[in-house]
Amino acid sequence: MTKAERTRQFIIEKAAPLFNKKGMAGTAISDIMEATQLAKGGVYGNFENKDEICLEVFNYLAKSLAKATDKSMEGETTAKGKLFALLNYYNDRLIKNNAGGCPILNFGTEADDTNPVIKKRVNEAIDASQNRIANVIKMGIEAGEFKETFDADMFAVKMFTMIEGAVLVSRVKGNNKHMELITGMLRGEIEQNGK
Amino acid sequence: MTKAERTRQFIIEKAAPLFNKKGMAGTAISDIMEATQLAKGGVYGNFENKDEICLEVFNYLAKSLAKATDKSMEGETTAKGKLFALLNYYNDRLIKNNAGGCPILNFGTEADDTNPVIKKRVNEAIDASQNRIANVIKMGIEAGEFKETFDADMFAVKMFTMIEGAVLVSRVKGNNKHMELITGMLRGEIEQNGK
Repeated sequence: MTKAERTRQFIIEKAAPLFNKKGMAGTAISDIMEATQLAKGGVYGNFENKDEICLEVFNYLAKSLAKATDKSMEGETTAKGKLFALLNYYNDRLIKNNAGGCPILNFGTEADDTNPVIKKRVNEAIDASQNRIANVIKMGIEAGEFKETFDADMFAVKMFTMIEGAVLVSRVKGNNKHMELITGMLRGEIEQNGK
Repeated sequence: MTKAERTRQFIIEKAAPLFNKKGMAGTAISDIMEATQLAKGGVYGNFENKDEICLEVFNYLAKSLAKATDKSMEGETTAKGKLFALLNYYNDRLIKNNAGGCPILNFGTEADDTNPVIKKRVNEAIDASQNRIANVIKMGIEAGEFKETFDADMFAVKMFTMIEGAVLVSRVKGNNKHMELITGMLRGEIEQNGK
């Protein structure tokens, strides 16, 4: 990494929790200056405009989320173990951390009517999240862990939408109760599809 | 209504779709001036500050949503009919209208880390939405339409989180496919709980 690339990366990482909490429109250049302790020229010397910072921040957050969810499943050898580990990740980490919650929810809700470039990237992140779930289920069906009637793609849609809805509710309520109910229901449905 | 009250209401109704689409931080006073054709003093003569406009706009949107969902169920005489009508409402209206989607999702996602007053109001709107669903199910159990094992409160949480997640996905994808999958799954589960 060159010095310029390191500075760019530093700005992206410092700006990420700000954008995830305050939103794209709600994050001012002055917020980024404060978080990075850089002058305006130091921030904008590394990016064309705020839109570019937004996009790089979302890319960084989406990549971090993908890495963390993959890592949560790593130690597990069965498909059921992987799905339960993923549910635990959502239950424990996504809500309780102090980084603003789920970037797919935050950026998707803001971008849908305002920013086609981010909207496209969020769409790709949604597909990646749903495919991650569906692929584990398909692996479990092949391995004979799950019934062949377990509809991987449908369950992935269900699990993803329930998790995102539960992130919304849990964050608005300021407690994890809804997320726990939702992950409990999903665990039950996964059990029912076991052989 | 006095003339001042009418002007206030006019501003709230014109500002509502702007806030629901662009967000609280993303809606500028100039946007409201353009939508209402009022000068800055004409807008701020009727509200203390932007926060007050945000709050009144959310109250107006939440009330409109509650009215519309109640109305969607009105003609139905059975609990199952009422739940299906509610699902149809979400399927047909919330996504396809051009008013920015679900205010609970939009304002909740933005307010969770930024605005405790709106966050509290969104929390109340979530409870009202879930209670609406739970009450219809309880009515259906009492009337002998649904099995007594149908857990009204749990299903209300599930249905609400799935719908909100599906609003997010459908709006980001720009099509109704996910919402149709989700409402189809929910209809299936309601059928399974019939006697």
